[in-house]
Amino acid sequence: MLNVQLLLTGNELMSGDIVDTNSVFIAREFKNLGIELTRKVTVGDNLQLLTEQMEQLSVDADILIINGGLGPTVDDMTAQALSEAANKPLALHPTALEQVKAWCVKRSYRLTGPNMKQALLPAGCNIVNNPIGSAPGFSLSHNNCQIICTPGVPVELKAMLRNEILPEIAKQLPEELQTVTQKLKVFGIGESGLQKMVNETYPNWPEEIELGFRATMPLLEVKLTSRSHTSSTLRDEWYNKIKGLLGQHIVSENGNSIAATVVELLNQQGKTITTAESCTGGMIAAQLTGIAGSSNVFEAGFVTYSNRMKAKLVNVNEKTLEQFGAVSEQVVKEMVTGALAVSDADYAVSVSGIAGPDGGTEEKPVGTVWLAWGDKQQVFAKRLYLPTHRIHFQNFIANTGLDLIRRLILGYADEPRYFVERQLKNKTS
Amino acid sequence: MLNVQLLLTGNELMSGDIVDTNSVFIAREFKNLGIELTRKVTVGDNLQLLTEQMEQLSVDADILIINGGLGPTVDDMTAQALSEAANKPLALHPTALEQVKAWCVKRSYRLTGPNMKQALLPAGCNIVNNPIGSAPGFSLSHNNCQIICTPGVPVELKAMLRNEILPEIAKQLPEELQTVTQKLKVFGIGESGLQKMVNETYPNWPEEIELGFRATMPLLEVKLTSRSHTSSTLRDEWYNKIKGLLGQHIVSENGNSIAATVVELLNQQGKTITTAESCTGGMIAAQLTGIAGSSNVFEAGFVTYSNRMKAKLVNVNEKTLEQFGAVSEQVVKEMVTGALAVSDADYAVSVSGIAGPDGGTEEKPVGTVWLAWGDKQQVFAKRLYLPTHRIHFQNFIANTGLDLIRRLILGYADEPRYFVERQLKNKTS
Repeated sequence: MLNVQLLLTGNELMSGDIVDTNSVFIAREFKNLGIELTRKVTVGDNLQLLTEQMEQLSVDADILIINGGLGPTVDDMTAQALSEAANKPLALHPTALEQVKAWCVKRSYRLTGPNMKQALLPAGCNIVNNPIGSAPGFSLSHNNCQIICTPGVPVELKAMLRNEILPEIAKQLPEELQTVTQKLKVFGIGESGLQKMVNETYPNWPEEIELGFRATMPLLEVKLTSRSHTSSTLRDEWYNKIKGLLGQHIVSENGNSIAATVVELLNQQGKTITTAESCTGGMIAAQLTGIAGSSNVFEAGFVTYSNRMKAKLVNVNEKTLEQFGAVSEQVVKEMVTGALAVSDADYAVSVSGIAGPDGGTEEKPVGTVWLAWGDKQQVFAKRLYLPTHRIHFQNFIANTGLDLIRRLILGYADEPRYFVERQLKNKTS
Repeated sequence: MLNVQLLLTGNELMSGDIVDTNSVFIAREFKNLGIELTRKVTVGDNLQLLTEQMEQLSVDADILIINGGLGPTVDDMTAQALSEAANKPLALHPTALEQVKAWCVKRSYRLTGPNMKQALLPAGCNIVNNPIGSAPGFSLSHNNCQIICTPGVPVELKAMLRNEILPEIAKQLPEELQTVTQKLKVFGIGESGLQKMVNETYPNWPEEIELGFRATMPLLEVKLTSRSHTSSTLRDEWYNKIKGLLGQHIVSENGNSIAATVVELLNQQGKTITTAESCTGGMIAAQLTGIAGSSNVFEAGFVTYSNRMKAKLVNVNEKTLEQFGAVSEQVVKEMVTGALAVSDADYAVSVSGIAGPDGGTEEKPVGTVWLAWGDKQQVFAKRLYLPTHRIHFQNFIANTGLDLIRRLILGYADEPRYFVERQLKNKTS
């Protein structure tokens, strides 16, 4: 079994300033190869400690992934530490220098000393291409261990690991170590709820197939992992059982977010969508337009935060606002009808609620929200209750709105679990 | 300086299934005492590796905090590992046993073998009370290092660390170890650019004052850290020098995002803002409404993704669209004027650009974007060029729009660096 270890560097990781998500990503990617990390060490920007650790871990590991410290500033010391640990003097690496230059040119920056420093690497190392940032990755063999240095910027790390590093490592792996992972994205079922469903329905879950969950707020990723030599019949049988269990809560089998799924469905049907948002303040529109290709399906969105603008922009009747208040079934329904009329879109979703921390009342506490969704034929509405942080509230509700549109487009009839679970007790909705 | 190290154990930390927040909490709590953790090691539930690490780290550290592995199950091995590392046989600890019993009684559980195991601890250790869970903490001196074992359940760890462990450690601390940190948030200056400015302007930066950066995309956090006994005169002198260097690029000194700063400024002035977004698709509005208190300053936002909606919702002249195209100075300016007129807000910002991956042309490649901003008196516009991922493009441009409004409200006249740095070469803007 390949012994893979991880060395992370950065004062921000030692000071408690940031949560380390890079090591989680790296661990997960290796897990997909069937490899579990043996050890994870984190140190600050301390040359001596960093050098020591490289030496120590490289003696023990087959592969040592180093993350961070490739930046242009003085406290980025990975190259120097490796140069000392492996006793390879620092030298300007021509390939690295080209990549840094190209990066500067692309942004029409002048190549400065700090950027130049990013090409100053241990002699004899191999360059790992960084498709995004200015810091080239590099690898070196030392103590019979393959040491691979990667950038701390998450998006750069991800690209480099997926495009360059893992495919190389996968080649070195014996076939029987390789695994197959099947993934589903789910919205509206929590980890414990799902685990309970599985235990009750399938008490004899086969041990060849590992069932794993990963919370990717507000979605849940469900993973089935098995060795590549496991029979594909068995694998598919249980994949289908899980799919049956999750039913219409399944958002995608290709890793797509709800927004991406909705944009895909609308593109397939040549239909368009519009949004009328109060408490989510443009988040639904932003999630849709965050998807490439959304311009075909999304023409306009309305952020109507005040009552005046609900009336002016999407024609909500002032009387309705007075009589029922902004957070009401009648108002969100009129927001949908108005948004459809003004934008001439095929589908619309609207939201009005109390995100907090202020603005709650006895009858409509913080966390109360009305959603409406529909097309020119029919408009539906539902009240939910989600007392949590403002940002979590907005994110969950924005995704709920998108999920309700997804279900409508697909003609799904089942009631999502959140209709039952996200209710204010002792109140009818 | 007290050398404090951290050893975390648990398979869930090695598989990438969970994000480790315990070590962030521990690091931050120690930082408040002026102590930065020297090293953080994470291993799975592996007795040999765990024992090795305890031995290794305890040789090096004054204090070793161990987190996790105190549970009742077989894969909780911290006590056994410490017993082997320190060569102290496991024995039922009377105080620990009492606490476990009390915990069971309180919940009217029967005291079972697994719970009993939680009182089976290295001989001679001291018990650290766990006010919440069943697992007592314990500490032992080995290799002249104080080893303190804490539970992995976050709420138990927090209570134990705050109520029991840190007060004890604080007593041992000399006053001069404590530190003071001053922070600034900056937009439009990168880490390397800033490092270069500092090197050139202040080659003799005093070593009593540590200058640190933290990228919180798209903002940069600048931190000055010094020992509490450093003269506050010196501290303030250099803090002010950095402020002078960063000038109008400083977004906040209280950790606020640009959106939060803008909402704060608008609240102070009793003014309102509106947005007309094409390629940022509602992100500017969402960032504003993500701030509590935004309802006083934000009434309406327009997401006008299509030309038709630019004309219909914010009165952009069809002729202007035909003649200059949607991504043009004329159109973004008309978007601002139209949004101000329709919403009756005091300030407006508009964006139209090519987020990609498709839609670029020879003359307007992907990454080209026009921003306009202003009030009823005057409207400004600027073209920028930012060839990067769609999501980064949208996030950076949304924040640029907010930053331009911030500068306008504050009456700032300096030209932001991104006006110069984010330009398409061989083209005038």
